[in-house]
Amino acid sequence: MEKKQLRIGLIGCGFMGRTHTNGYKRVGDFFPALQYRPVLQAACARNEDSVKAFAEQWGYASYETDWRKLVLRDDIDAVDICTPNDTHAEIARAAAAAGKMVLCEKPLARDLQESQGMVDAIAKAGVANTVWYNYRRIPAVTLAKQIIASGKLGKIFHYRAQFLQDWTINANLPQGGTGLWRMDAAVSGSGVLGDLLAHCIDTAMWLNGGISDVNGMTETFVKERMHQVTGKMQEVTIDDACSFMCRFNNGSLGLFESTRYARGHKALYTFEINGADASIRWDLHDLNRLQYFDNSDESIVRGWRSIHVTDGDQPYMNKWWVPGLGIGYEHSFVHQVADFLESLETGKNCSPTFAEAHETQKVCQAVFDSAHSGSWKRTGI
Amino acid sequence: MEKKQLRIGLIGCGFMGRTHTNGYKRVGDFFPALQYRPVLQAACARNEDSVKAFAEQWGYASYETDWRKLVLRDDIDAVDICTPNDTHAEIARAAAAAGKMVLCEKPLARDLQESQGMVDAIAKAGVANTVWYNYRRIPAVTLAKQIIASGKLGKIFHYRAQFLQDWTINANLPQGGTGLWRMDAAVSGSGVLGDLLAHCIDTAMWLNGGISDVNGMTETFVKERMHQVTGKMQEVTIDDACSFMCRFNNGSLGLFESTRYARGHKALYTFEINGADASIRWDLHDLNRLQYFDNSDESIVRGWRSIHVTDGDQPYMNKWWVPGLGIGYEHSFVHQVADFLESLETGKNCSPTFAEAHETQKVCQAVFDSAHSGSWKRTGI
Amino acid sequence: MEKKQLRIGLIGCGFMGRTHTNGYKRVGDFFPALQYRPVLQAACARNEDSVKAFAEQWGYASYETDWRKLVLRDDIDAVDICTPNDTHAEIARAAAAAGKMVLCEKPLARDLQESQGMVDAIAKAGVANTVWYNYRRIPAVTLAKQIIASGKLGKIFHYRAQFLQDWTINANLPQGGTGLWRMDAAVSGSGVLGDLLAHCIDTAMWLNGGISDVNGMTETFVKERMHQVTGKMQEVTIDDACSFMCRFNNGSLGLFESTRYARGHKALYTFEINGADASIRWDLHDLNRLQYFDNSDESIVRGWRSIHVTDGDQPYMNKWWVPGLGIGYEHSFVHQVADFLESLETGKNCSPTFAEAHETQKVCQAVFDSAHSGSWKRTGI
Amino acid sequence: MEKKQLRIGLIGCGFMGRTHTNGYKRVGDFFPALQYRPVLQAACARNEDSVKAFAEQWGYASYETDWRKLVLRDDIDAVDICTPNDTHAEIARAAAAAGKMVLCEKPLARDLQESQGMVDAIAKAGVANTVWYNYRRIPAVTLAKQIIASGKLGKIFHYRAQFLQDWTINANLPQGGTGLWRMDAAVSGSGVLGDLLAHCIDTAMWLNGGISDVNGMTETFVKERMHQVTGKMQEVTIDDACSFMCRFNNGSLGLFESTRYARGHKALYTFEINGADASIRWDLHDLNRLQYFDNSDESIVRGWRSIHVTDGDQPYMNKWWVPGLGIGYEHSFVHQVADFLESLETGKNCSPTFAEAHETQKVCQAVFDSAHSGSWKRTGI
Repeated sequence: MEKKQLRIGLIGCGFMGRTHTNGYKRVGDFFPALQYRPVLQAACARNEDSVKAFAEQWGYASYETDWRKLVLRDDIDAVDICTPNDTHAEIARAAAAAGKMVLCEKPLARDLQESQGMVDAIAKAGVANTVWYNYRRIPAVTLAKQIIASGKLGKIFHYRAQFLQDWTINANLPQGGTGLWRMDAAVSGSGVLGDLLAHCIDTAMWLNGGISDVNGMTETFVKERMHQVTGKMQEVTIDDACSFMCRFNNGSLGLFESTRYARGHKALYTFEINGADASIRWDLHDLNRLQYFDNSDESIVRGWRSIHVTDGDQPYMNKWWVPGLGIGYEHSFVHQVADFLESLETGKNCSPTFAEAHETQKVCQAVFDSAHSGSWKRTGI
Repeated sequence: MEKKQLRIGLIGCGFMGRTHTNGYKRVGDFFPALQYRPVLQAACARNEDSVKAFAEQWGYASYETDWRKLVLRDDIDAVDICTPNDTHAEIARAAAAAGKMVLCEKPLARDLQESQGMVDAIAKAGVANTVWYNYRRIPAVTLAKQIIASGKLGKIFHYRAQFLQDWTINANLPQGGTGLWRMDAAVSGSGVLGDLLAHCIDTAMWLNGGISDVNGMTETFVKERMHQVTGKMQEVTIDDACSFMCRFNNGSLGLFESTRYARGHKALYTFEINGADASIRWDLHDLNRLQYFDNSDESIVRGWRSIHVTDGDQPYMNKWWVPGLGIGYEHSFVHQVADFLESLETGKNCSPTFAEAHETQKVCQAVFDSAHSGSWKRTGI
Repeated sequence: MEKKQLRIGLIGCGFMGRTHTNGYKRVGDFFPALQYRPVLQAACARNEDSVKAFAEQWGYASYETDWRKLVLRDDIDAVDICTPNDTHAEIARAAAAAGKMVLCEKPLARDLQESQGMVDAIAKAGVANTVWYNYRRIPAVTLAKQIIASGKLGKIFHYRAQFLQDWTINANLPQGGTGLWRMDAAVSGSGVLGDLLAHCIDTAMWLNGGISDVNGMTETFVKERMHQVTGKMQEVTIDDACSFMCRFNNGSLGLFESTRYARGHKALYTFEINGADASIRWDLHDLNRLQYFDNSDESIVRGWRSIHVTDGDQPYMNKWWVPGLGIGYEHSFVHQVADFLESLETGKNCSPTFAEAHETQKVCQAVFDSAHSGSWKRTGI
Repeated sequence: MEKKQLRIGLIGCGFMGRTHTNGYKRVGDFFPALQYRPVLQAACARNEDSVKAFAEQWGYASYETDWRKLVLRDDIDAVDICTPNDTHAEIARAAAAAGKMVLCEKPLARDLQESQGMVDAIAKAGVANTVWYNYRRIPAVTLAKQIIASGKLGKIFHYRAQFLQDWTINANLPQGGTGLWRMDAAVSGSGVLGDLLAHCIDTAMWLNGGISDVNGMTETFVKERMHQVTGKMQEVTIDDACSFMCRFNNGSLGLFESTRYARGHKALYTFEINGADASIRWDLHDLNRLQYFDNSDESIVRGWRSIHVTDGDQPYMNKWWVPGLGIGYEHSFVHQVADFLESLETGKNCSPTFAEAHETQKVCQAVFDSAHSGSWKRTGI
């Protein structure tokens, strides 16, 4: 069967550039029935040596050092934005204006104003789009969605999530510049709020519906750090930690926490949802497992089930190996590529779209505002 | 060696009456070096049949049906209050006025005004006293205290705790009356705030110092329940769930949650504390274990340690069996009895005293006020 | 209700003397409906200072230093044997001959000949008897028995058990004498085979029926140790480690291992049983939990269930606290006392009887013989 | 940098054909510094439709339906054998004779005679070779090797491993033919012994040295199954379960078990090694974790460490993502490809070689013989 080509122009060749590229390269091997095949047409980054090496290593057919050129190239069908947050909006708007499909790393933008402009541009252009909230497509998380959708949980009472890291505890770690732009709010928009909590919020609203009201707090534990670009000690402008309480539209309560100061946790993203009839827990560190408690089990043998999500009837797993053999973090990106390609066949959206990711921005903005005012804020959702 | 007698008058013969009595009966077997021995002098409850049966079963030498008589008896050295919360204050004040030592179940009182009166009465009488925040004396929790006191954690960034139950999800469960007074705020003062969060707060301030500011929320999921006393459907006045964010005096952030609507959790009290150098976690469902992460471990073999707290050099464990053989929930009460008896020898306080438990009341009150105002509250601590 | 007295004469005041005594003292508080009440009539040990102190600490009404006197006392109804293994047989026979009920620590005897004599003496005397294979009465283990009896597992294919300790790794640890008689085969009969594997075998045959054929191996890692009694370096005569493969009468295969050289394991007794339809696992270090896998669960949410065995409808747990609050190792002895007392009411045996424990001895003997011959042995069961 | 090509001829396009091919395709992206690059030159299988589709899906430049042709092609540098076990020997000998490098799936052969012939042929040809015992290269397993090599464990006392599956419990599952050749001993040589235990034995001897003596047992639970090729009910000739006890040359004891009848376990490969000073455990179902107990830890905070093997200083992990983000089963094959390519640069062997895998065959053969004779067997190692 002849495949249709989807020529990718990737902007940003860092960590996310690698995860996305790997997704493009593997999708054909494991999802052979899809009609579209990604083609690594061009990679783009400002530093020519870097982008050239990246393109060679991963097999991009060409490279650019100016993203403005890339988004206008005729041989590019889709622009994938893997750059720091401060450039998402401008690139996305330009790519949409050029009629390209747009795939954008999360968070969508630094603030609600930026993301609104992006949503408008996408809507006006009418191009296919998606935002890389990849955790939705960890099979165990997708299974959680299926279980909830089946009604097994009954009325929901509680949702809680945390994203705990420990990599910035050292006060001598600098801020800003290559590899550390996430610590400079001018570039990133915020600290853990946009970097970590945004993931938690995306998953939460996908699984449990809209968040209507929030009440948050933030803290910056290390007040000054040397800035890599200026070489000077400067005030740290990001939030090192951010928590919030919230209410969902379905009447359930939420509790969220994120930090980069939780010693012992590398990337501990967990969520738990409690319904009247059943509950679910998940943990990124053991990503192939889903914890499930079903109150309808016979009383004396009732307990939390540790589901090893590696069977062929579980989400995405018929594409990989055999029961018991786990997959990893990177596969979530392969799945999102596959779903994006499939959306091109079906004409349906590949969730989360820019519009959906904008809803997550609304919650982030309300948390930010709430933390600064010390009071509850409506999200408008 | 001749032992000194400590003649106990126990008021309230329910669940807590059993746990305390078991503590009095076992302490001599396992802490033989203590100079004092509890004597089960009298049990007291309003229903004569019940209290008589209780006294016979457990071996109390006598019984009373009027606590006012009991607190005045010359043959009673210490009054132990195991009654519903609405009677704590009056009994404690009367017992103190009669010169008795006072041991009181938690929470100390229904509100801050009541607890202030109790603290004043105890101070005036100058009698030995303690409040049964028993979880401090689970060996793994006591070990956590030792580890923190040793400085192993370094500067503290985060403290989080939850107490999750699921026993009131059924909307047909009545409120109030025997066995269910915890669901009637007129008797209990609050719902999960005083019943569950108070435990979390007591442990937290013991381990991590004072909480200065709080921001809470509460919810009552089931709005009306049949009242066992009146036989009528009545508004539910307790909080079914209560969460709060807070700041500790040491600069760390706290996050607390409690509920009786978390399907799958019977009595899941957990806490975690993250320091710059090490972290600790604990979980009541696996109470003999303490999780510990030490960043000074060699990098390639660093990981959370699951410490089975059953060795003779760990708190209290030289009194029990041999390494690997766990103890249970009830032992925490035996330990508190032992420590109370020892305090009579040493003249030191048996923590938490009424004064310390009053600090916990301050936090509870501030959480309550905060939840109703939707804003941050100072605890005054 | 007037209770009938069961006057206990306890012989041996070491670790097991404590666990049994605690059982006698607590059973009335937690099993109040039983008609019999143990009375601590006399404790017996050779060293007068020790036994006197023990009797005082635990509340025995009298003491003896000669067990021959104790077993003949008219005011003793039941003799409880907690002495080293080399005296079990003689005491048991004498006690039975004197018409006393006999409760004996495990293993029943040092070898098959001894245990046969004990079984014969008990049968001749027709007295109530039981052997303290206490792990059967950990609630999670009893629940395993119930689940298996209900047929949930279907045809059984596999049974595996291990009992791993690490307390004798140090080559400077002496052998023999007080506290270390378990390391002298002249006293103990064997090493881990009788001490640890006997527990595993008892549970296994209770849960899965008779073991017909065995093939074992043993090892003594430290060949010589200083003997505490002689003060000399002597050959170590016990097995430090013992494993065996076996076949059960029901066609399933078994694999057993025990050692005192498994660094990191204090007293890790685990078993697992795999049936066509379901499987069960248990672990003494987390004794309140039972792991259960039920293949009839819906496929996408199927997984091992972690059952927290603390609910009132689970074995023995309606006697203790409330759901979620665990009990400990010592409770297994309270349960055996309760069941023994109940057996006096009902006239039924309190399993395991001497006759049942003799079956375990048969397997131990066959494992021992097999290890020495290097070939399969029939147990005769 | 110009890369050298390694032109691969893959024989067998089933499950293992996929895992190996994925390894070849990804190695360049994640191990860019290697001088060699695999080129997917030709795939080979008997069914033309299948092999053509496979070649298209995965990107092989050509295909063959006769392996004899493939091994003689001038444009093939290395032959990778992914066929059923009964063809390994003939293909390997032919490939070696043609001067090709040979990579062979495990087990090397059906019996010791076959594997001896293969080792001889490889030695004579002097070609690079490796056998796909892939689990060595799960990072946590490689880390175990490093820890052991560092001496941290001290003298070793015990090694135990199990490989538990449950996929053949259904008696209606046929045997033999496509997808089920592992259940026909004529093709596979044995059942779980060669399929599962061979992995355990390979890892064990890599980590703990040679196994000198074994004593095994086997069982075939379902005696007859419909054969897919003949369409008739036929005797099942494989072992459904196989266990063995053993002694290592270093004086430690081993216990091994494998089965396809352990309900609840998909592919539970676990091993544990106990040394005087430290112990290690691993479990394929949670493959990113390594459990480690170090007795030199301070006593009160000593416990099993759960090491999340995802940091850059842990084996292979600097090639993938960031700390906390796990990888999967398939990565072990990528690592073996990388190490094979590196071995071409360095001239060192890529372990396990045919000669090393032949040692594993010796143990398998001795276990087989032992199970049939009911007695201990020397392996000759």
